[in-house]
Amino acid sequence: VKITPISGFPEYLPAERIVEQEFLDVIRSTFELHGFPSIETRAVEPVERLVGKGGDADKEIYAVSRLAADDGPADAQLGLHFDLTVPFARYVLENAGHLAFPFRRHQIQKVWRGERPQEGRYREFTQADIDVVDVGELAPHFEAEMPLVIAEVFRKLPVGRMVIQVSNRMIPEGFYLGLGIGSEDITEIQQTLRIVDKLDKIGAAKVREALLEAGRTPVQADQCLALAAIRTEDLSFVDQVRALGVEHPTLDAGLEALSAVIQSGLENAPGAMVADLKIARGLDYYTGTVYETQLVGHESWGSFCSGGRYDSLASDGKTTYPGVGISIGVSRLLGLMLGQGLLTASRSTPACVLVAVNDEPSRAESTGVATALRERGIPCEVAPKAAKFGRQIKYAERRGIPFVWFLAAGEGGDQVKDIRSGDQVDADATAWTPPARDLRPQVLSGQLTESGRP
Amino acid sequence: VKITPISGFPEYLPAERIVEQEFLDVIRSTFELHGFPSIETRAVEPVERLVGKGGDADKEIYAVSRLAADDGPADAQLGLHFDLTVPFARYVLENAGHLAFPFRRHQIQKVWRGERPQEGRYREFTQADIDVVDVGELAPHFEAEMPLVIAEVFRKLPVGRMVIQVSNRMIPEGFYLGLGIGSEDITEIQQTLRIVDKLDKIGAAKVREALLEAGRTPVQADQCLALAAIRTEDLSFVDQVRALGVEHPTLDAGLEALSAVIQSGLENAPGAMVADLKIARGLDYYTGTVYETQLVGHESWGSFCSGGRYDSLASDGKTTYPGVGISIGVSRLLGLMLGQGLLTASRSTPACVLVAVNDEPSRAESTGVATALRERGIPCEVAPKAAKFGRQIKYAERRGIPFVWFLAAGEGGDQVKDIRSGDQVDADATAWTPPARDLRPQVLSGQLTESGRP
Repeated sequence: VKITPISGFPEYLPAERIVEQEFLDVIRSTFELHGFPSIETRAVEPVERLVGKGGDADKEIYAVSRLAADDGPADAQLGLHFDLTVPFARYVLENAGHLAFPFRRHQIQKVWRGERPQEGRYREFTQADIDVVDVGELAPHFEAEMPLVIAEVFRKLPVGRMVIQVSNRMIPEGFYLGLGIGSEDITEIQQTLRIVDKLDKIGAAKVREALLEAGRTPVQADQCLALAAIRTEDLSFVDQVRALGVEHPTLDAGLEALSAVIQSGLENAPGAMVADLKIARGLDYYTGTVYETQLVGHESWGSFCSGGRYDSLASDGKTTYPGVGISIGVSRLLGLMLGQGLLTASRSTPACVLVAVNDEPSRAESTGVATALRERGIPCEVAPKAAKFGRQIKYAERRGIPFVWFLAAGEGGDQVKDIRSGDQVDADATAWTPPARDLRPQVLSGQLTESGRP
Repeated sequence: VKITPISGFPEYLPAERIVEQEFLDVIRSTFELHGFPSIETRAVEPVERLVGKGGDADKEIYAVSRLAADDGPADAQLGLHFDLTVPFARYVLENAGHLAFPFRRHQIQKVWRGERPQEGRYREFTQADIDVVDVGELAPHFEAEMPLVIAEVFRKLPVGRMVIQVSNRMIPEGFYLGLGIGSEDITEIQQTLRIVDKLDKIGAAKVREALLEAGRTPVQADQCLALAAIRTEDLSFVDQVRALGVEHPTLDAGLEALSAVIQSGLENAPGAMVADLKIARGLDYYTGTVYETQLVGHESWGSFCSGGRYDSLASDGKTTYPGVGISIGVSRLLGLMLGQGLLTASRSTPACVLVAVNDEPSRAESTGVATALRERGIPCEVAPKAAKFGRQIKYAERRGIPFVWFLAAGEGGDQVKDIRSGDQVDADATAWTPPARDLRPQVLSGQLTESGRP
């Protein structure tokens, strides 16, 4: 069997994986600091639970069936999940009797989509989600909490400045109703949202054209574009909307709700959020606050982190579970940053020390040194071969291991060498400690390499 | 769609997941202390790479195909991996030019098998593997290193005593050759190994019967059983084998190799290993040291951790990559222990503190306290509702959150209450620290609950 990569299923070399682990560790620990316990759901769901849930996702579902079975994918009972929201909604319904509401959870898992692969778009990728779900009603302060958690994640990640764009679906809906859009045919609102949602992709002129084609009047089209152009870091978006002269109770409710979220951002994460009224998440079933993100300087890469409020995240017919959540597209973000050489790891192994071996009969003594270092939390390995010391140092160098430990052979005691500087000092395996920055591999940002790979 | 669990695809409640995370964290950090970097491979492999690789695993493969595609599973190009060894071998061949050999890695991922589900046997489960692979030749000391890493993992996990049973495939092979088995027809050796491998399952009498049926002489059968009965914690297995009076150079090599592994265990992990000559891993392609494990007191649960040495882990026709590895069946171990109520988590959330809310207008002040606690690494959440304090305490109680923080309302300062003891003391959010044992959820062992669930 010839070995070739499978398009859309990326794999990392060890140094790249260290960068990914750093990202996942920061995300998990931040989610935990905010009191979101982890759950994992199985990779598969019944196909009929997946179909029709993801907007255009139907065609993207991977069916799973036993190879030995006769039935084709069309008869498949199971499919791989394409996001973490559909499985979470099912998990809530299945375990409602065992969960305490409001229920918070985080979930970091792979998802699969049969999409056409392209840069930063994969068929297998990792998402990291937080959601809060409650029974019947969900307090609005959770809509303000989500972006604060995300802002903290991105403050801690070495990705540069990430801006969270926030809006509220009630704003365009109320505004459109106030303009007379949807007053006779409610589907006009969704249709208008979808067209305006393309603003970043196709530009204002084409959006205006599409709105006119869809039956909006020139005044309506211009007003829709004026609303979508409003973007403020503070609460002044309210006055800018009011200045457009459109009135509707749903618009009032939306402006009040978004003000609360932005106000919370100003107090708790200054500079992290912006009220951006073009954000609609057109294809999704959000009903309140909606979130997208932009990496400053890489706006063309699109949003790496999106979400919003659903009035009905899950429902079993009797009980409705409203929720709010946000999802980080970890693989997309990493894939683009690694691909551009914007992130590298300082070494390709967790080992901080290579313990040299004087000769094979004394390997047990080198193992003893390694054990003593590990007992104090210092990752290390023992040289694979009692080769010349130069070759043992080379082994450490190739992997970026910063220290090589030499055992006393006869006179004198042990010594440890920083192979970057060449400094070599006396050392005791029960007491020596590396500098904190060397204990674990570091993720370095902005170091462009020729190949774009660490 | 009616919601029912899918047989063989277990899911955990948050408190159970906390136990699983603790296991995975201990496993990963121990692997890293020993200098094994992490890799992950994609969930899918070309079907032709999976078929025929897993002994009886062929019928267990899950095919993956796009739901919209016409081809049935028999035409499938891709299948879900059923272990982490086959993908690792492929990864080594694919990336050989980018890896430094001997190459160490750990890999903790889900795998899938279409097996009939039963207690502790799943269709989706997590494995945690370490392997070392080299080019052309692999130094034997790596065979001694593997069980030391595993012994350290199990010393740190709250599972009771785990014994690693070690043998070497050269011992039965050389012994059988010395007895005349396989001297004319080499397949007799594999056949004999497979029969003896059933010893624990069917007992000595039935194994003897099966050996006779397979054409072994009564003397050969008795000698095979005598060899398989040898089990020693020290090096005395060598004398016991010698006392059986069988001689062969391969037997000598096997005894010497096993002695080196057991000697290393005696020096570095006393009590963790036993030489157990019935261990053969009959269906697998091991060529040297082989490992299984027994949980003391739960021997009937079988092995949770197995592996061995392959002379040809991977090969591209020109270059051969020998390897040695071992795999922990995390889900099997956890499923049985959680199912029996042998492990519980002290709470169902990472939050250590619930910050109470005096009234909704002052929620921002409670958020400020939470931020101050988080800045010092204390996981917390803010009460979802400014309800009566009794109800806010109830919220913490249901989740096992040990502390509730009350903000000064008017006179006096903040106070924090340990809701288990009722102790309430003055506290400052920029200085107060919980006892170390309360900072994160603890995994408690041996606490049988009525339902067997935490």
